[in-house]
Amino acid sequence: MLAHASTALTPHGAGRFSYRVPARHLLGLEGMPQADLLGILEEAQFHREQLDRSGIAGRELESITVCNAFFESSTRTRVSFELAARRLGATCVSFSSTDSSTAKGETLLDTLRVIESMRVDLVVVRHSSSGAPAYLAKTLAAGVINAGDGQHEHPTQGLLDLLTLRQSWEGRFEGRRIALVGDIAHSRVARSAIHGLVTLGVQVVLAGPPTLIPQGVEALGVEVMESIDDALTGADAVMALRLQHERMDQGLLASLAEYARAWAINARRVRLMRPEALVLHPGPMNRGIEIAPDVADGERSVILAQVTNGVAVRCAVLRRCAQALTEAA
Amino acid sequence: MLAHASTALTPHGAGRFSYRVPARHLLGLEGMPQADLLGILEEAQFHREQLDRSGIAGRELESITVCNAFFESSTRTRVSFELAARRLGATCVSFSSTDSSTAKGETLLDTLRVIESMRVDLVVVRHSSSGAPAYLAKTLAAGVINAGDGQHEHPTQGLLDLLTLRQSWEGRFEGRRIALVGDIAHSRVARSAIHGLVTLGVQVVLAGPPTLIPQGVEALGVEVMESIDDALTGADAVMALRLQHERMDQGLLASLAEYARAWAINARRVRLMRPEALVLHPGPMNRGIEIAPDVADGERSVILAQVTNGVAVRCAVLRRCAQALTEAA
Amino acid sequence: MLAHASTALTPHGAGRFSYRVPARHLLGLEGMPQADLLGILEEAQFHREQLDRSGIAGRELESITVCNAFFESSTRTRVSFELAARRLGATCVSFSSTDSSTAKGETLLDTLRVIESMRVDLVVVRHSSSGAPAYLAKTLAAGVINAGDGQHEHPTQGLLDLLTLRQSWEGRFEGRRIALVGDIAHSRVARSAIHGLVTLGVQVVLAGPPTLIPQGVEALGVEVMESIDDALTGADAVMALRLQHERMDQGLLASLAEYARAWAINARRVRLMRPEALVLHPGPMNRGIEIAPDVADGERSVILAQVTNGVAVRCAVLRRCAQALTEAA
Repeated sequence: MLAHASTALTPHGAGRFSYRVPARHLLGLEGMPQADLLGILEEAQFHREQLDRSGIAGRELESITVCNAFFESSTRTRVSFELAARRLGATCVSFSSTDSSTAKGETLLDTLRVIESMRVDLVVVRHSSSGAPAYLAKTLAAGVINAGDGQHEHPTQGLLDLLTLRQSWEGRFEGRRIALVGDIAHSRVARSAIHGLVTLGVQVVLAGPPTLIPQGVEALGVEVMESIDDALTGADAVMALRLQHERMDQGLLASLAEYARAWAINARRVRLMRPEALVLHPGPMNRGIEIAPDVADGERSVILAQVTNGVAVRCAVLRRCAQALTEAA
Repeated sequence: MLAHASTALTPHGAGRFSYRVPARHLLGLEGMPQADLLGILEEAQFHREQLDRSGIAGRELESITVCNAFFESSTRTRVSFELAARRLGATCVSFSSTDSSTAKGETLLDTLRVIESMRVDLVVVRHSSSGAPAYLAKTLAAGVINAGDGQHEHPTQGLLDLLTLRQSWEGRFEGRRIALVGDIAHSRVARSAIHGLVTLGVQVVLAGPPTLIPQGVEALGVEVMESIDDALTGADAVMALRLQHERMDQGLLASLAEYARAWAINARRVRLMRPEALVLHPGPMNRGIEIAPDVADGERSVILAQVTNGVAVRCAVLRRCAQALTEAA
Repeated sequence: MLAHASTALTPHGAGRFSYRVPARHLLGLEGMPQADLLGILEEAQFHREQLDRSGIAGRELESITVCNAFFESSTRTRVSFELAARRLGATCVSFSSTDSSTAKGETLLDTLRVIESMRVDLVVVRHSSSGAPAYLAKTLAAGVINAGDGQHEHPTQGLLDLLTLRQSWEGRFEGRRIALVGDIAHSRVARSAIHGLVTLGVQVVLAGPPTLIPQGVEALGVEVMESIDDALTGADAVMALRLQHERMDQGLLASLAEYARAWAINARRVRLMRPEALVLHPGPMNRGIEIAPDVADGERSVILAQVTNGVAVRCAVLRRCAQALTEAA
């Protein structure tokens, strides 16, 4: 739980970064001002360098308790948040839906109120319902960090995508072009990435099966191209989106083989992009479906850098939300 | 594992509280002397104030290892014990039945002997069989804390109920009256609460469907009333008990709607109590069944205070059991 | 993550032990030189004495992050590794297959690459496929510790068996004789024990149902005896192996009762051994099947000492692997 504002966030890093809208929640990247995005990325870069330099954990958040409340299972995101919280010295507890009281008829809000009442400062929530974290944030005094909600947003994933691009693009987003390929319609990863990229001035092109491109998505400031080759030609980066196998059962796709032929990011398609172009994937990958194995493991791939950046971004987000709580205290 | 007795429990709080029966186990509230109950509550109140004041964790139990051995799943109780253990600096590991060796044919006692042999000092046990913790306590050298056993007891829940009442009643239990409403027969929560309340001189009245009131329960020192309105009239507090849906399948109840009409704590019934009367519920709540939503969220409700007090009580219990181990060492 | 080599492993114990083959992996005991085995056992004995003396955790591995990646469920091994890691001050996170991305179609290697990319230094892997840890070790920069792979090896179990024998045999392995009884064919525990025992000069005799003794096992340097009584007569120790119930379904055994009659370690058979002979079992035990309850709890039994030694051995192995990483950095 938070101590007094003046002492809670003392050590290095504290006070170094400021945000136009100090907020204890991170619900999505939609509508986040450019300066805030850039501020988070700057701090995340600092944490990334700390990660590369030393394994010694910090103490900045030692007065903070974080609870990972995962109502959808996830290894990578939960472990990433746990490692970020512990690197900063926070107390961190986790639970997943399998052992949750919601199975006993309790409402989601009651479950989180109970967690909060145990003097938890920040709750990291993953839920299959779009809007669940925003709903919780309206009521809870704790900070709410969205770790993926339905088909809505996955903002720390969007931020780690941006951090990865920032590192290769030397901080210049304006004038760059990225193609997002695959199942846009069901992807909270795509949605958060689009909001962040558009805010930072990146030109975003979408390509994928017509059944998986949402109607009217151009309103988000992106362009839809029918041809994947057109989308990739001259691009600075491509993000291959994970294809959920259930899209087949839903009749949205004919077959995996057909999908792979038409939409997989393979070596030929990578060569359509600019020479130094990047290949991103949020994981977990279906190798041979949305991405060819040689591309996933190739020199253009920054897929594992994304994972490392994920820990750094989560450090920055946890600290930002904790700082907002402290300032409000 | 425990260091030498003289150094294990050094910092603030240590030695401040004494117990007539220093015991490394907490199996139930039945038979616990009044002075012990009051001693635990006094220390728990101290921890509650620490919780309210600061997030900085203590070091009192840094030489202690705690294992949460949950053979029934539970989010709230496990997380509460984890947070309590970590606040005091203990090493804390947890497992639940889903990954337990008991699934491989090992006896419960062998599983716990193995855990103990890893130099675990305190085991927090939840089990579907009444008496499982007491059975373990006969053999183990580790301290055994009952986190709920079948339909027997849930002593830390009973203690948090008492702590919550103590805070509102300014420490005076004598002459107070509380109504426990609902499924008394299957409730370990009710059983622990009754033992504690009766020991402290509180008048306890039970009300609920006849199929859910145990025969001869008056022997515990409580009164059974047929009418919920009679039970509530003039009471200082009411505890609504959780209704398990399986009671329907067992033929003990006609319908949820009928139960709610007859036994739910609603606004009209709350007004039958004294003006400052309290509403308690152990959670997880079935809103609209045993408790009306406006009562659960109303000004009389201390349901979330119970949760916060749960962490404080578990701090006190862990420290008490650890102290007993240290003194025996 | 690792800091600079010069500072990562500073306190007591560091540098005290050396290994002929500093290695960041522990994949099995097969082929491990005698001096390495003895070196690990010497360090593990040091940790065992620390365990017996004090609960205060060390800081030796505070710059190290360990991930327990369990693709088969296990309580005892996971908790043992967690306690060992925390005793040395490491950051430790765990996941089990139930919440793993592999369920989403990700390859095992990709899952572990992702974990490694989160700046995890050591991964402790349990997997149902023999060879999975060795496969991972070929690619990962992180150290890989085998916590049991299929029917291949379980090297920390083998080491804790050796440590337990070392304590009773006053460090002298040469000229001793041990009988391993039961399901040798499917036992990674037996396999690791055999490699370690043979390397240290212990005479190993196997006995069990012919369907459960692998063809040509004598090539490992052991002897197979048809009669369990012959195997036990004059032995210094016996290890009863766990009988998996599925062996019945596979038609490898007629009945549990028949197995128990023919192969259980009971009091009569214990008396065939030397007077001070030891009884080991890796757990979890099927009491009354492969081992008689009075033997499991008898004065010859060192089964719980094995468990305590397991934590000590894992401390030594984690430190050894971390040291190798540091030296390579």
